[in-house]
Amino acid sequence: MSFSFRVTHTDGRARRGVMATAHGEVQTPAFMPVGTQGAVKGVLHRDLEEMGADILLGNTYHLYLRPGDDLIARRGGLHAFIGWPRPILTDSGGYQVFSLAARRTVAEDGVKFQSHLDGSAHLLTPEKVVDIQAQLGSDIAMVLDECLAHPSGDELVRPSMERTLRWARRSRDRFLTLSEKRGRTPFSETEKRGTTPFSGGGVIVTNSGQAQFGIVQGGTSPELREESAHGTVGIGFEAYAIGGLSVGEPTDVMYKIVAATTPFLPEDRPRYLMGTGTPQDLVESVARGIDLFDCVLPTRNARNGQLFTSEGPINIKNARFAEDDRPPDPTCSCYTCRTCSRAYLRHLFRAGEINASTLNTLHNLHFYLDTLRQIRDAIAFRRFESFRTAFHQSLSRQLHDS
Amino acid sequence: MSFSFRVTHTDGRARRGVMATAHGEVQTPAFMPVGTQGAVKGVLHRDLEEMGADILLGNTYHLYLRPGDDLIARRGGLHAFIGWPRPILTDSGGYQVFSLAARRTVAEDGVKFQSHLDGSAHLLTPEKVVDIQAQLGSDIAMVLDECLAHPSGDELVRPSMERTLRWARRSRDRFLTLSEKRGRTPFSETEKRGTTPFSGGGVIVTNSGQAQFGIVQGGTSPELREESAHGTVGIGFEAYAIGGLSVGEPTDVMYKIVAATTPFLPEDRPRYLMGTGTPQDLVESVARGIDLFDCVLPTRNARNGQLFTSEGPINIKNARFAEDDRPPDPTCSCYTCRTCSRAYLRHLFRAGEINASTLNTLHNLHFYLDTLRQIRDAIAFRRFESFRTAFHQSLSRQLHDS
Repeated sequence: MSFSFRVTHTDGRARRGVMATAHGEVQTPAFMPVGTQGAVKGVLHRDLEEMGADILLGNTYHLYLRPGDDLIARRGGLHAFIGWPRPILTDSGGYQVFSLAARRTVAEDGVKFQSHLDGSAHLLTPEKVVDIQAQLGSDIAMVLDECLAHPSGDELVRPSMERTLRWARRSRDRFLTLSEKRGRTPFSETEKRGTTPFSGGGVIVTNSGQAQFGIVQGGTSPELREESAHGTVGIGFEAYAIGGLSVGEPTDVMYKIVAATTPFLPEDRPRYLMGTGTPQDLVESVARGIDLFDCVLPTRNARNGQLFTSEGPINIKNARFAEDDRPPDPTCSCYTCRTCSRAYLRHLFRAGEINASTLNTLHNLHFYLDTLRQIRDAIAFRRFESFRTAFHQSLSRQLHDS
Repeated sequence: MSFSFRVTHTDGRARRGVMATAHGEVQTPAFMPVGTQGAVKGVLHRDLEEMGADILLGNTYHLYLRPGDDLIARRGGLHAFIGWPRPILTDSGGYQVFSLAARRTVAEDGVKFQSHLDGSAHLLTPEKVVDIQAQLGSDIAMVLDECLAHPSGDELVRPSMERTLRWARRSRDRFLTLSEKRGRTPFSETEKRGTTPFSGGGVIVTNSGQAQFGIVQGGTSPELREESAHGTVGIGFEAYAIGGLSVGEPTDVMYKIVAATTPFLPEDRPRYLMGTGTPQDLVESVARGIDLFDCVLPTRNARNGQLFTSEGPINIKNARFAEDDRPPDPTCSCYTCRTCSRAYLRHLFRAGEINASTLNTLHNLHFYLDTLRQIRDAIAFRRFESFRTAFHQSLSRQLHDS
């Protein structure tokens, strides 16, 4: 099964569709829970399936460093290794290199850095990032892009955007070169013994149906974004992402750049806004033509005690919840809300219990996935605008703390 | 529903039975997963029910200090607070006072100590321990006993055993005094406002069907154990526990003391061996007439990477498992063994993922609960001896590390 995308409904600029991948379909707009190291922290695959997660995101940087893409390829790829039979998208690792790694130096060839785990030296080139993801065998691979800090002036953004375009061309070339290998059966004994990954031909391609997405950069400049979009679409990828947002810029700037970029991306391909965001951000980005999201917010904040609710976020640590027998969100149908009071969740959090992370994460992911379900339904019934208005009104009640 | 116990099958000294409590029945011999602070670390109630856990253990010491038994009583008791509708046993808190608390001083009245959380000063008397557990509303409450370190000579053990007997008498008196309150409806507004727990009459009794178990002490002396058993049974409790074992004495000494004590405990009451033990310990203790167990071994060791299997324990951290695609125990039907390889579990453990704790704990508890299921079946079919032999042979294969 190869990659495809079909828009089934539109409502204004919002789209509902179905993205088909080598491991099944994804209803869009979709939110991808982040499974950094091959697991979504605190919840099992079983729970993700029950919540209706169609697709997971895995982090190439982390998996490359530990346990290594070679080991994962020998297990049959990431799906087999982690026991998740549904779609997986892997990022390029670039964002983590720019945010986590030490002694990072960027040159035309690629990025040199030291592992945040053991200080070991590594070089990620556009080609190597393609090879690693070919070994991981994700259904969607992302190209290596350069991630700038915000704010950066045009004098930094333009050359960086142009380098990202050159890297995109190299990434696509490498991807197409590997494509001829994609018909091969992985795991023949010959291949196992003969593997010398990244030295040329020794890459184990574990997913013959992998797609590759290009990434539009260009900072907060609509002109550079347009130029980047044209260049990236000109190279030709299965689909396109918007990178370099949700990095500290004001929300209205992000919305403006999303709105200014999506018109230059093909109607018939999914559009992925990387690393975003709050529930409001998802709704506003769908309104501007986005189809795919990923973000650590629901999972990371869950572990810090923040629960998203239909009336705004609450912080379960707050003393006011000590004797509150209500569920986190009385309108929610998740396991946590069906079985736990705020008082109990506050106790578990204060007591440092692992189950606090699990229960909070179950709820937050359910809230995100349910929001996307509501968005998809609203688009199908062409009532997205009234949903959008009601959603913001409900969240802005802020009966609780934030 | 009040407490009762019925032996349904015997095979040698091993017994199979049904223990009825205010929140349902427990098939014995039974293992009670430890939910120290109102949660079994790493697994949700849902998982425990699916695994067939009939009963949980809660720690009075921890719950008394945080969130406090007053708060739990105002929520309707521990069952309502944590959302577990099945049987719960609470320990007395004594063991934790003797192992965790600082500046501990024991006198005839009770134990003074400082909280390990904030250094605050507390006094636990036999009466107060009864009151706390009345507020928690567990189905089975344990009396306060004095826990000596091993080894202790007879000159320490005898007076300690005798004090434990005097405390047991005071505990039973307090329990019977509260019994007249057990018919009262908890939570009347009057009671809420008027509550001054432990000062006399202000205790909120949240479970009118609570039972109280006495505890036999006496160190490693069969004579002192016999004396303690006679004294404790003389006071008269719903059932009896053996305390002060699994504290560092050699295994054969523990087995000897269990064998020397059970004959002095009533046939028609369950016998609870506190804090034990390894899978082998469970089988050997059932062979000596024990019906109930609790232990942190399966849960704590899971979090440290040790997995119990039908061929002995393995340590998932071990490098030999890096590329091992087999499940932890190929004969096991738990979620972890159905969906995860040793290679994946090793990766999650090394990566510090929460899910490593969850998946390992799911497996270990399943292994323990399944062992008890096999024990109960073996007794019912009067083939306990052959089961016992086969069980030890399988475990002693030790194909793996320990």
